[in-house]
Amino acid sequence: MSLLGTSIIGASRGNGSKVTTHAINPATGEKLEPAYLGATSEEVARALELAAAAFPKYSRLSGKERGAFLRAIAGEIETVADEIAARGPLETGLPEARLRGETARTTGQLRLFAALAEEGSWVDARIEHAQPDRQPLAKVDLRSMLRPLGPVAVFAASNFPLAFSVAGGDTASALAAGCPVIVKAHSSHPGVSEIVGAAVRRAAEKTGMPEGVFSLLYGGGRDVGIALVEAPQIKAVGFTGSRSGGTALMAAAAKRPEPIPVYAEMSSINPVVFLPEILAQKGEVLAEGLFGSLTMGVGQFCTNPGLVFLEENSAGPFLAKLKTLVEAGAPGVMLNSAICEAYHSATSDLAKKKDVAVLAKAAAAPGQGQGSPVVFQTSVDTFTADPELCAEMFGPATLVITGSLEKITAAIVDLEGQLTTSIHGTDTEIAQVDDLLAAMENRSGRVIFNGFPTGVEVCHSMVHGGPFPSTSDGRSTSVGSMAIHRFARPISWQSAPQSALPAELRDGNPSGIWRMIDGQRGQG
Amino acid sequence: MSLLGTSIIGASRGNGSKVTTHAINPATGEKLEPAYLGATSEEVARALELAAAAFPKYSRLSGKERGAFLRAIAGEIETVADEIAARGPLETGLPEARLRGETARTTGQLRLFAALAEEGSWVDARIEHAQPDRQPLAKVDLRSMLRPLGPVAVFAASNFPLAFSVAGGDTASALAAGCPVIVKAHSSHPGVSEIVGAAVRRAAEKTGMPEGVFSLLYGGGRDVGIALVEAPQIKAVGFTGSRSGGTALMAAAAKRPEPIPVYAEMSSINPVVFLPEILAQKGEVLAEGLFGSLTMGVGQFCTNPGLVFLEENSAGPFLAKLKTLVEAGAPGVMLNSAICEAYHSATSDLAKKKDVAVLAKAAAAPGQGQGSPVVFQTSVDTFTADPELCAEMFGPATLVITGSLEKITAAIVDLEGQLTTSIHGTDTEIAQVDDLLAAMENRSGRVIFNGFPTGVEVCHSMVHGGPFPSTSDGRSTSVGSMAIHRFARPISWQSAPQSALPAELRDGNPSGIWRMIDGQRGQG
Repeated sequence: MSLLGTSIIGASRGNGSKVTTHAINPATGEKLEPAYLGATSEEVARALELAAAAFPKYSRLSGKERGAFLRAIAGEIETVADEIAARGPLETGLPEARLRGETARTTGQLRLFAALAEEGSWVDARIEHAQPDRQPLAKVDLRSMLRPLGPVAVFAASNFPLAFSVAGGDTASALAAGCPVIVKAHSSHPGVSEIVGAAVRRAAEKTGMPEGVFSLLYGGGRDVGIALVEAPQIKAVGFTGSRSGGTALMAAAAKRPEPIPVYAEMSSINPVVFLPEILAQKGEVLAEGLFGSLTMGVGQFCTNPGLVFLEENSAGPFLAKLKTLVEAGAPGVMLNSAICEAYHSATSDLAKKKDVAVLAKAAAAPGQGQGSPVVFQTSVDTFTADPELCAEMFGPATLVITGSLEKITAAIVDLEGQLTTSIHGTDTEIAQVDDLLAAMENRSGRVIFNGFPTGVEVCHSMVHGGPFPSTSDGRSTSVGSMAIHRFARPISWQSAPQSALPAELRDGNPSGIWRMIDGQRGQG
Repeated sequence: MSLLGTSIIGASRGNGSKVTTHAINPATGEKLEPAYLGATSEEVARALELAAAAFPKYSRLSGKERGAFLRAIAGEIETVADEIAARGPLETGLPEARLRGETARTTGQLRLFAALAEEGSWVDARIEHAQPDRQPLAKVDLRSMLRPLGPVAVFAASNFPLAFSVAGGDTASALAAGCPVIVKAHSSHPGVSEIVGAAVRRAAEKTGMPEGVFSLLYGGGRDVGIALVEAPQIKAVGFTGSRSGGTALMAAAAKRPEPIPVYAEMSSINPVVFLPEILAQKGEVLAEGLFGSLTMGVGQFCTNPGLVFLEENSAGPFLAKLKTLVEAGAPGVMLNSAICEAYHSATSDLAKKKDVAVLAKAAAAPGQGQGSPVVFQTSVDTFTADPELCAEMFGPATLVITGSLEKITAAIVDLEGQLTTSIHGTDTEIAQVDDLLAAMENRSGRVIFNGFPTGVEVCHSMVHGGPFPSTSDGRSTSVGSMAIHRFARPISWQSAPQSALPAELRDGNPSGIWRMIDGQRGQG
């Protein structure tokens, strides 16, 4: 397709404001055509009106109809996979293979949510029958299920131009729940966003969805984004990005006349603890694993292992191997110049810290837009005394922290909330560190044993969400099928005639879903 | 028991600050002994420390152990039912029978949550097995379940001195989830709070719970409350009370370095719509039903029907009967002088409004601390034009609004969020008002057919929560078993050895709960 550079507002295209932006090739600094025109405030208002108008209709479609829409989106994205693979590397610096893999992950994710909507049991349908003769009071017929919240604003991420972007997990889970979606495109990859947004539109038209079910807005500054969060039509927000961006949206949402939930996935440094016996047994293998996790995608993952805790006595071979790997490590093009500059600034700040040493850094100097692997080292006492050592360095950098197990445990207890915590140990070692495991559980959403935090499986049991500030709302996940619950709320129907009930709550279970009837679960 | 007038801080009693308060008998204005001593800031800090220390232990108890604690609380409360029945009417103006009934509701609620914890399936356990040979990437073993958030602060309500107070629904659901609880007593019924708080303590000691699992704090102003909400140890808040109180807690929680969820149940005017055919068929019976719902408990329920919508043409007999009932209605003692004054002020403000008429008011003049039934009437055009007509009048007052079905539907669409919406109609009528039903669903947490909003069944399918401002978080309920989900978050364990997993996630299902295994639900 030829890129038009304009917002997609329901079935129409925006004309755009005079504020234009271009994608920049991070490897060269070169401007990429076309210019992208920010949405005007009238265009934002139009997208909001369309979404609000679509809600009553879209939210009352059956799960099978919503599933068909999601499958159509996946199919349409597959037809433009080559275009994505061509444009994506120019906009993001990511290799074609990664973009093709991420496209497959995205379509897989859309189909997971399609299956969830089609199967339908996620709504947690509950029926309690009337007991008119109950003493001292009659019991009424009461039936409940989850229903969608309303239109959702989704803020796309820079580091996953597909899986956490226009048709990524937030969009897929909100659409599956029954919520129309307005996406604010990320300025780093407007072209990929337009290709995917146009695919979503085609799917909406082919499956006869109401016009306002999906819009995609471009906007230079924060204006479009804040307008979306403040709009009365919007009932929830999904965001993946920086801590400052996420907390700004949280504050705006809390100040609304009607506060709304914000699901922001923001900042995590993903501590990895190595216990001494496993480190003595296979230090070099563990160093290879850590290095792979640290440098994958030039370290630009929210699950990048940014802190490494160990007792120094048995760590010699591990540290030596890690040093060798890092020194031989190659610089890589980062997603955009802002991320690259922030990475250089964060790592050079850390290098200046008293009592923080550079354990190893890549020998090759970084080229334009590139970041290089670097590993710092300090003591747990220094770490505990300086909160700045917990700042996220978004890129292939980590901080090795050495000290006693007791002090390591205390440091984990005091950490801010994390997406993940990881521990490496023999079975015997792990059986002896209950306090550490309790602290890891308490401070994160996913506890990993003898593995590394990168690699987030899209499935029913994934929790990609943890206590603040890793996410704004640690009661939720932004990856996996449980993500659908973010965009729904329970509603009860009391003494309703069958015709006024959603199919999921009717006698005879026409939807064939799992339900709880008078306290008993089953498919009846 | 003899009342001591001091906070219960773990296993100890507070000494209290110099700030004392007394319960006041609302029927007489008489001060009740003893004086209640507000908790000092040191005592608040001690309760917080104890709760934080209790969390790792209490949260890892089995559901059966937590269930035993909740059942012990119910049993201990039953042993002091006579004391509650003696003290309660003095503090609240509520009749003894109501307090005995509410005591039974409270112990029933505790046992419902005990059963939920003991049965254990509420944790939504999910297991996905590893697929080491999967292409292109191996799949890891991943297991998830809900785990408690941490210590919870509960703010007791004035209008349910038992069921929404010290050992009420918030406390029961938080304890069942695995969270220690610190209750801030309501100043209206300190004696009943102390009787119940002491019962909870005895239960904690008899079942060997960690000391900090429960504390009860008194405090005159908002200091103790705000200190609890701002404390880093507190991870969630439950509140039942006014809109101003609830929104103040929401703002304080949002401003914390680590924002936490606030579950505030605040303000609802519970519209009831009467369709013309049913009104023509049985107007007098419906007037009796409305009058009963309106005046129950002197109208001091969050589900009190504060708005009544109807088309005037067939409403003659209904309105005539309602007028007769209200004029013969008796004044009743309200919960405290602040509520009584607010009621008189709200109803006299409304009476002064241009275009709002008094349809009927009780003939007998209210005595000390009493409120009387009153019904106002206006047109839907006047109602729509004046947002002040939506203000809650906490007491036995309602506003009848007449107009066309189309305008009534538009007025419901534009309402703020409600706990409930109710509709009365014949089956034929209800089948023809899809837009109205969609608006009712969209604006409330419970949609009631041919019934009235008072009467909130404590069961699995109850939703007592709606869009803001009826509650702070319409994704939750404060009544019924789903309330437990407010105090938990999902956590994943990746590649964990069996010994490091909670029992709910182990192979062989030692807990015997419902789980989802590789996408399939079952008890295996």
